Amino acid sequence: MTNYFANGNEVQLFEQAYTRKIPVMLTGPTGCGKTRFVEHMGSLLGRPVVTISCHDDLTSSDLVGRFMVTGGDVVWTDGPLTRAVKAGAICYLDEVVEARHDSLAILHSLTDHRRTLYLDRADEVITAPDEFMLVCSYNPAYRSSLKELKPSFRQRFATVAMRYLPPEREAQAIVAETGIDPACAQRLVRCAIAIRTAEEAFHFEPPSTRVLVTAAHFIAAGANEVEAAEACILAPLSTDGAISEGLREIAAAGLLAVDTL
Amino acid sequence: MTNYFANGNEVQLFEQAYTRKIPVMLTGPTGCGKTRFVEHMGSLLGRPVVTISCHDDLTSSDLVGRFMVTGGDVVWTDGPLTRAVKAGAICYLDEVVEARHDSLAILHSLTDHRRTLYLDRADEVITAPDEFMLVCSYNPAYRSSLKELKPSFRQRFATVAMRYLPPEREAQAIVAETGIDPACAQRLVRCAIAIRTAEEAFHFEPPSTRVLVTAAHFIAAGANEVEAAEACILAPLSTDGAISEGLREIAAAGLLAVDTL
Amino acid sequence: MTNYFANGNEVQLFEQAYTRKIPVMLTGPTGCGKTRFVEHMGSLLGRPVVTISCHDDLTSSDLVGRFMVTGGDVVWTDGPLTRAVKAGAICYLDEVVEARHDSLAILHSLTDHRRTLYLDRADEVITAPDEFMLVCSYNPAYRSSLKELKPSFRQRFATVAMRYLPPEREAQAIVAETGIDPACAQRLVRCAIAIRTAEEAFHFEPPSTRVLVTAAHFIAAGANEVEAAEACILAPLSTDGAISEGLREIAAAGLLAVDTL
Amino acid sequence: MTNYFANGNEVQLFEQAYTRKIPVMLTGPTGCGKTRFVEHMGSLLGRPVVTISCHDDLTSSDLVGRFMVTGGDVVWTDGPLTRAVKAGAICYLDEVVEARHDSLAILHSLTDHRRTLYLDRADEVITAPDEFMLVCSYNPAYRSSLKELKPSFRQRFATVAMRYLPPEREAQAIVAETGIDPACAQRLVRCAIAIRTAEEAFHFEPPSTRVLVTAAHFIAAGANEVEAAEACILAPLSTDGAISEGLREIAAAGLLAVDTL
Amino acid sequence: MTNYFANGNEVQLFEQAYTRKIPVMLTGPTGCGKTRFVEHMGSLLGRPVVTISCHDDLTSSDLVGRFMVTGGDVVWTDGPLTRAVKAGAICYLDEVVEARHDSLAILHSLTDHRRTLYLDRADEVITAPDEFMLVCSYNPAYRSSLKELKPSFRQRFATVAMRYLPPEREAQAIVAETGIDPACAQRLVRCAIAIRTAEEAFHFEPPSTRVLVTAAHFIAAGANEVEAAEACILAPLSTDGAISEGLREIAAAGLLAVDTL
Amino acid sequence: MTNYFANGNEVQLFEQAYTRKIPVMLTGPTGCGKTRFVEHMGSLLGRPVVTISCHDDLTSSDLVGRFMVTGGDVVWTDGPLTRAVKAGAICYLDEVVEARHDSLAILHSLTDHRRTLYLDRADEVITAPDEFMLVCSYNPAYRSSLKELKPSFRQRFATVAMRYLPPEREAQAIVAETGIDPACAQRLVRCAIAIRTAEEAFHFEPPSTRVLVTAAHFIAAGANEVEAAEACILAPLSTDGAISEGLREIAAAGLLAVDTL
Repeated sequence: MTNYFANGNEVQLFEQAYTRKIPVMLTGPTGCGKTRFVEHMGSLLGRPVVTISCHDDLTSSDLVGRFMVTGGDVVWTDGPLTRAVKAGAICYLDEVVEARHDSLAILHSLTDHRRTLYLDRADEVITAPDEFMLVCSYNPAYRSSLKELKPSFRQRFATVAMRYLPPEREAQAIVAETGIDPACAQRLVRCAIAIRTAEEAFHFEPPSTRVLVTAAHFIAAGANEVEAAEACILAPLSTDGAISEGLREIAAAGLLAVDTL
Repeated sequence: MTNYFANGNEVQLFEQAYTRKIPVMLTGPTGCGKTRFVEHMGSLLGRPVVTISCHDDLTSSDLVGRFMVTGGDVVWTDGPLTRAVKAGAICYLDEVVEARHDSLAILHSLTDHRRTLYLDRADEVITAPDEFMLVCSYNPAYRSSLKELKPSFRQRFATVAMRYLPPEREAQAIVAETGIDPACAQRLVRCAIAIRTAEEAFHFEPPSTRVLVTAAHFIAAGANEVEAAEACILAPLSTDGAISEGLREIAAAGLLAVDTL
Repeated sequence: MTNYFANGNEVQLFEQAYTRKIPVMLTGPTGCGKTRFVEHMGSLLGRPVVTISCHDDLTSSDLVGRFMVTGGDVVWTDGPLTRAVKAGAICYLDEVVEARHDSLAILHSLTDHRRTLYLDRADEVITAPDEFMLVCSYNPAYRSSLKELKPSFRQRFATVAMRYLPPEREAQAIVAETGIDPACAQRLVRCAIAIRTAEEAFHFEPPSTRVLVTAAHFIAAGANEVEAAEACILAPLSTDGAISEGLREIAAAGLLAVDTL
Repeated sequence: MTNYFANGNEVQLFEQAYTRKIPVMLTGPTGCGKTRFVEHMGSLLGRPVVTISCHDDLTSSDLVGRFMVTGGDVVWTDGPLTRAVKAGAICYLDEVVEARHDSLAILHSLTDHRRTLYLDRADEVITAPDEFMLVCSYNPAYRSSLKELKPSFRQRFATVAMRYLPPEREAQAIVAETGIDPACAQRLVRCAIAIRTAEEAFHFEPPSTRVLVTAAHFIAAGANEVEAAEACILAPLSTDGAISEGLREIAAAGLLAVDTL
Repeated sequence: MTNYFANGNEVQLFEQAYTRKIPVMLTGPTGCGKTRFVEHMGSLLGRPVVTISCHDDLTSSDLVGRFMVTGGDVVWTDGPLTRAVKAGAICYLDEVVEARHDSLAILHSLTDHRRTLYLDRADEVITAPDEFMLVCSYNPAYRSSLKELKPSFRQRFATVAMRYLPPEREAQAIVAETGIDPACAQRLVRCAIAIRTAEEAFHFEPPSTRVLVTAAHFIAAGANEVEAAEACILAPLSTDGAISEGLREIAAAGLLAVDTL
Repeated sequence: MTNYFANGNEVQLFEQAYTRKIPVMLTGPTGCGKTRFVEHMGSLLGRPVVTISCHDDLTSSDLVGRFMVTGGDVVWTDGPLTRAVKAGAICYLDEVVEARHDSLAILHSLTDHRRTLYLDRADEVITAPDEFMLVCSYNPAYRSSLKELKPSFRQRFATVAMRYLPPEREAQAIVAETGIDPACAQRLVRCAIAIRTAEEAFHFEPPSTRVLVTAAHFIAAGANEVEAAEACILAPLSTDGAISEGLREIAAAGLLAVDTL
């Protein structure tokens, strides 16, 4: 069982969607634990998880399969989506908004009452077993992106919105992952919260739980807290490499604050 | 026989088009039942339905066929359109506006008095049997889309316009699909109608019958109505993941309204 | 002999071009009968017609031919243009403006005094027999299109401009195709003329003879005139699916007018 | 010997370039006889002419050659440029401005003191024999085109500028090609001159000698002069198919003028 | 052991990241020694370094591998990233910002708790050994670039910021590389510092340690200092080939300054 | 030994770069002799020259090599860059700014202390022998070009700036190439200088030594000076084919001037 920290009704909604054979769209900020959640649910439901990282180059052939030459002949080879359907697995399309939208059309017949995959090129029609579940993830924070999921596509999914853990739980997760001192973990969380709060003014991607865990790893390996926060929390925020004094002060205020989480 | 709820003269028009060998263009909003309607008519007319999901990457080769290597030689393999023509099937091009418009040129000779498919690469000419019928679907709500069907293409089809079911029938359809309490189904429909009415101000894709069915599935699985409406009806409407208070109030007003449909 | 209704000097000009080995460019609005005219002239002149539907994806290889693997070797296979040249056929490039303009360069040596096709890849030079004739069609109504034929390309052809049939003849053509009552056919034509006249204000592609024939087919199959006009004449005119009241009134005025054509 | 009507010092310049092994760039308006001139010079100099119609899709592989599969192995096959170099032919790149400019880089080493073709993929270096000559043509009238030859590319060639024939010679050429009455040929030339003179106001490609010859062919086949001028001279000038009254009057004034050329 | 001059806490941070299995992003200006630093750390940690130069054309297949034909069959061949993972090497993606961002999606599962590479096409899942480390480099000075690393991607790495060496150490490095007179090396460094200081006004990429070493090589080969500075330091700064007088004066001031570094 | 006229310290700088294994970037206007200079240096240093004409379509595979099918198997075939590295040749990338910048990334490891070529696809690493030298050329006059070499790329090379020969030497070079009368060569040079001087007002690519040699070839073949200057010097300057009177007067002033060079 993976170590997943639940944070709302996401486990219940996921189970209900699985029971009623409804595809799920996970939304939430970078590094809030979407991937871990899917792994956790696969473990809970006893289903394998087939992960597909979406990208602009992902063709529908990469999803469903293609013809390949073997022994001089051309033989059909299933893609990961087809394998997941046949195996009754949880098929997880990570960062689905990155995919070419035309590649996603192949998912339509899997996400309505048909639950069927049409392999036109192989002249095959596959009906998904009850255990098959389609899960996509999507970071809606990229508001200015040219790429946006079509509303009609989003309506094919039940949306499960994920959030950062509350501060106390986030600090616990950091300790569980890296073994650092709980007080130090709390200082890192306060530092992140200070920046997340300032985010609306600065317009950057706020620091995720993941970067706090990374910083904690450095501290566990002997780095001091300022070095670790600089390398893992502050540096990725600035696009020009030069961390502004304003950010440094905000972060330092978080690290030094004495009030509890 | 699939469970299809008729909603006007679409069955009669489809049958007349089939009798007179006229291709049909289905229009209507997302999730109003276009795909189900085609399946229903295939069943009524006793013809198989060949479904092709259109997308930007769909080449005319994907429609008509291509040469493939088998046993060292190159052999022509029919595509789904060619197979549908030969079999006298109903060929259904779902979301035809998504296709590359140049791919659609191959349909011209099938949609006028010729009813003929020219396979230039295979040096073959196929005349459609009387039973063959071409059906396309198209969601005209994407008004701002860069892609629009050419008027000369649209004139090749008789247009059958589909709409949402009237409220009472929509609630019945939800009950028939999910088995939830009719009063609850009516509340979901009222919620959708409230949002659809507000849509002109908000400019989003209004919630379809499909999302109401999905919400009803969650309720049938034990979710409460607010959770289900949030995950299935409200969340897909907002592009930034944060559902506005305005939308929540409109939806809540629909769920709580006491007047009958 | 196909049923073609002549409408000016187009038959005479086509015959003179054939006699003097001059390529012809047909212009005119959608559905005014360009394709039928070419079929008619092929029949009159006793030459086969090779039709090529032009589209953005049409490469010069699709026109002239390509190398294909057969029995392990690579063998040249003629394309439809090459076959038409060798057979002394009428080669008809439908909607030539849709083709990639670079593909059209292959036609240059066929359209001047050389009447020769250079197959660089096959290292072959084919001189057209006297019976070969090249015909292109082009709808100049797409005034705003990004694609326009180059003037130097247009100068390689004699232009034969085609128009809608005069009202009385158009009604006769509808009766001949569908067998409906002549008075009803006249009402459909009056409806189309009313819309065509209003077209300059509305800026849409006006209804063609083809859509009137389609509407007549529905009437012959039992639909009433309003239903048929709605599905076949009005619906394809509006891009947003909602037919405006203004259009409906114009169409109704045409259907109800009592004055003769 | 082809029937070419010389029109200045172009024959002398071409011969001098051939003697000194200098590549030639022909410039001039559409249909002024560039292709015929190259054929004529090939005949005069006793060299074969290899014609390559340039277009956007022309890769350097199409020019120099490519590897092809024969009998299971991959064998290099020369392209038309390579064949022309080896044969000491005149290689004529028609409408070179249409080619992808990167494809033209392969010509650089053939157009300076090296006169050498580097076939990197075939690992071969071919030095041109003295008889080889490279000729390109280019219509500078497309002033607004996005595509323009790079100045450094144009400096690699001696430029031979071609013009329309003077009126009396143009009429003689028309009579020689079509056998029509010389007075009629003169009327066609006057008609063209009237339009060419008006061209600066109208901004269209002026009618070429080619379209006058085409119109004369129609007249020789029995068409009257107005029909022939309409189909061949006026129609290609207007992009919207509707010939303006202004143009018709200009053309008519030319046809009816009684003063000699 | 390569000759690397440490310049801060970068060695310590790199070692800590290696110990805790955290991927590292190196940032810093052109030619400040990022590549040398990675080679140095590979040597220190006793791990081979697999270098991949990123570019726009780098597909995920180039990273992970592809199917290749051998003996008639299609066999999977690992790419350099896959080889590095299997070998427990340091995989160094040089100038990662140049890569197509969709290619980088393949790295996600290697840069979080999974440390796993999913080879969908080969149907293989590879978990990285503890010795494997992923290092990317990135020059944030290209502020105006269209290409920018996504913040969520940058958060997957600990950032190690590199800088130019302090003047005295930079001069020592030049002497160590080229053997020139230390006073001369100091003059070159002063020249570079003068230009780097002026950089904010001129907006060019400042001269790197690399160009100083190159200039020193010329001096060691007999060039005078002005020639060497002109060819190696000044010429690459100006985009139009003409070095401005202002730049020349700034450089000369550096070369002639008598104060010590 | 080729006939090269030295024009500054370029020979000395090139030899010093060769001795110290530093790559060289040649800059200078069109036709000033960059290609000849590289051939001359190859001859002086006793190294073969491998020339690669850069263009937009040049992939890194075209530079380093690719897999090819031979006898049914797939065998790696070195590209010209790889062959040049292995042979210790001078590899000359002509007009490097035309290449796709991502293709150039493959050169990075050859242009720093590594002097190594990584063939990822062939899984091979080649260290260059001491005799190998990389030379690129680049015409910085294309100031408005969208394509510009990245500063970090330019810093990898020592820049050797080339210029037109001084007038007297340029006239000698023309005589040496074509054998025309020295006084006539001087008139051609004066004509070019007059235009080059006027260039800043006209904004065209100034006439190069190459076009003067071409004009001299025509004169040697019997053309008069005005004809030759028109075809070779003036015509390539004007993009619309019509040489302006202003330019003609400037050129004539140069041809007729009586003062010595």
